[in-house]
Amino acid sequence: MAGVYEGAVQDLIDELGQLPGVGPKSAQRIAFHILSADADVVARLVNALTQVKERVRFCEICGNVSEGPRCRICEDPRRNPTVLCVVEEAKDVVAIERTREFRGRYHVLGGAINPIDGVGPDDLRIRELMTRLADGEVEEVILATDPNIEGEATATYLARLLRGMGIAVSRLASGLPVGGDLEYADEVTLGRAFEGRRRVES
Amino acid sequence: MAGVYEGAVQDLIDELGQLPGVGPKSAQRIAFHILSADADVVARLVNALTQVKERVRFCEICGNVSEGPRCRICEDPRRNPTVLCVVEEAKDVVAIERTREFRGRYHVLGGAINPIDGVGPDDLRIRELMTRLADGEVEEVILATDPNIEGEATATYLARLLRGMGIAVSRLASGLPVGGDLEYADEVTLGRAFEGRRRVES
Repeated sequence: MAGVYEGAVQDLIDELGQLPGVGPKSAQRIAFHILSADADVVARLVNALTQVKERVRFCEICGNVSEGPRCRICEDPRRNPTVLCVVEEAKDVVAIERTREFRGRYHVLGGAINPIDGVGPDDLRIRELMTRLADGEVEEVILATDPNIEGEATATYLARLLRGMGIAVSRLASGLPVGGDLEYADEVTLGRAFEGRRRVES
Repeated sequence: MAGVYEGAVQDLIDELGQLPGVGPKSAQRIAFHILSADADVVARLVNALTQVKERVRFCEICGNVSEGPRCRICEDPRRNPTVLCVVEEAKDVVAIERTREFRGRYHVLGGAINPIDGVGPDDLRIRELMTRLADGEVEEVILATDPNIEGEATATYLARLLRGMGIAVSRLASGLPVGGDLEYADEVTLGRAFEGRRRVES
């Protein structure tokens, strides 16, 4: 589609098309929306983009996103410091927080081990994790990396690393999604659901 | 999800979520991409957004997007001034240009008649269209509004308006999309394809 639009519109479509999940069609749709949107709507979006880059950084303890040197969870004295949940990305923290099931603390790795993309253990915040665990306060580490090849490999790597430290290491349960249909589950998930089946009292 | 993220990140997610086709999940994904993107990537996006609002306007003749008072197509002396293609939006101009089938000129209405959304004929660039047709240079008007209820209503309205002016009025053909499977066509499209069937020489 190069050259179809004049300069500024095409430039915007190109920039929008670089965003994750935005294909050429969506980029065009968003660009035309911007074109006919009120100037203050666009000013708010520009401001939000600028502010995020200026104000947001990563928590010096856990690696979560934060506007101060430490994130709200690390600053919260009510959070249990003996349970640490290890996740790949800051957005995983949000997903887990939304469940309201977990009251411990987090450690964000910044990704998963992925040899194909050239991501090794040294590229993740694993050294920082080991430093946090050194003082012996943490009693349980929950490995909540993604249930895919990279996430499993990372969990296996970390489980080995934590062996013999006297820390309980666990992994989130795999199984059928709640509210889903059994017939739509893929075979790996269904297999895991069988493997992890639980006795029902009768 | 309100309150889950801290200020600036949540603000960006909210602003992104206002864009067409960007749901809460995509907005979150884009926001985290922005967070970890290089500062110059974000600067380029911010600049593209700002430039579009500053430099792009609408062609004073046809209503297409343009960086000057008149768009490239209206300025091009090689375009046939006797055939006028009427479309709803500037992005329809791009779609038609991509076919390289049409060498006439355009008129962008800025939408379609839609009583539910309160869009009547006076909200579209119909008065401008009639002014353009007044000098008698245009011999054919192709009504290329969308093949949906609003587009059909607009085409019918315009066809009536143009009656008795000595101008040939046509509508784009409806039928099966090329490269598609007949069994996947909806019944209205299939009905139109039967209606508009063409004799094959044998």
